[in-house]
Amino acid sequence: MGQGRFITLEGGEGAGKSTHARRLSARLGEEGYGVVQTREPGGSPEAEAIRTLLVTGEVDRWSSNAEALLNYAARDQHLRNTIRPALKQGQWVVSDRFSDSTRAYQGVTGGADMALIDHMERVVVGPTRPDLTIVFDLEAREGLSRAGKRPDDHDEHRFERKGLAFHERLREAFLAIAEADPERCVVVDATAPVDEVAETVWQAVASRLIA
Amino acid sequence: MGQGRFITLEGGEGAGKSTHARRLSARLGEEGYGVVQTREPGGSPEAEAIRTLLVTGEVDRWSSNAEALLNYAARDQHLRNTIRPALKQGQWVVSDRFSDSTRAYQGVTGGADMALIDHMERVVVGPTRPDLTIVFDLEAREGLSRAGKRPDDHDEHRFERKGLAFHERLREAFLAIAEADPERCVVVDATAPVDEVAETVWQAVASRLIA
Repeated sequence: MGQGRFITLEGGEGAGKSTHARRLSARLGEEGYGVVQTREPGGSPEAEAIRTLLVTGEVDRWSSNAEALLNYAARDQHLRNTIRPALKQGQWVVSDRFSDSTRAYQGVTGGADMALIDHMERVVVGPTRPDLTIVFDLEAREGLSRAGKRPDDHDEHRFERKGLAFHERLREAFLAIAEADPERCVVVDATAPVDEVAETVWQAVASRLIA
Repeated sequence: MGQGRFITLEGGEGAGKSTHARRLSARLGEEGYGVVQTREPGGSPEAEAIRTLLVTGEVDRWSSNAEALLNYAARDQHLRNTIRPALKQGQWVVSDRFSDSTRAYQGVTGGADMALIDHMERVVVGPTRPDLTIVFDLEAREGLSRAGKRPDDHDEHRFERKGLAFHERLREAFLAIAEADPERCVVVDATAPVDEVAETVWQAVASRLIA
């Protein structure tokens, strides 16, 4: 099937990343590509154990630096056990969040040490950078409202509890990341109807990675 | 009670660190000092959750880089919630392991990125360096034999399983750390009778921090 590609979906809470990770993975499968759909934090058994530490519990459970360190520990495991083996086999990898989330949540918005994040990125991620990143954009208030309507069958609400001002800064952080790296990033209006968003995502993938 | 001091006990498996953390803390208490006895990885509720990820499970569960990242995430929590509040109140802190263990286990012996460890040390630990570090030294074979005789009421054996060659390099790493920083570190012969070791530890503390 040729060379595998690495696609990441980024953005704040309630932006539709999980939905479109599923839809994009299904579409790639229909087109005949081998696909691994994954997510961060998590994406491998050990990294999912770190996810639980990050996304559950009290809102002030960790400092932003500790969150960044935990994210990169999980990312190291995810890369070694899921992402790199899949790419090596020629599969496509679609990840719901990756390094941009650490930069936006813990770095720009949370105030974690940005030079340390850069250093972890070089050591842990190295050359395994995404070929394409879709940034799902919508107003923070709307995203939090959508996230609040999810079926409450888990306790993954720690970041949603950080308040509207946090999520407004977060939105700006993702837009700034996309603006600084237009070769890799595409911003998608996440307020459009879901089928329209899915088609926009697919066109971005097709035009940049398949054409 | 005056200024709190920060003492760390370091060394390989089975060297007696936990025993002497208890004995030293008890002795300091008898002398009238407020003492917080703690340990790494762990020492605060959140950091203990990270400890479980580090010290249980399969021996190849994490890369050395991931272990180093997890250790510093736990250390950040430990410093913020246990060590710095205690020192601020004038208490003495006695920790069974601290940063030297990350340097020795994950860095020198495990091959984790040493520049990244240095960077995490600056960001996470900063000026909260130990006033005194006791390095408990004994042959790796003897230490592993002692560790193997512990009551088996837990599953904290992940590092013991890394093999004799790993633990021999580890011993050299701790001795090199002590040799490079004689102002802070004292090496104690851990093969001496336990009361003699306890007295040697106490003399090191008394002469360097109390005299």
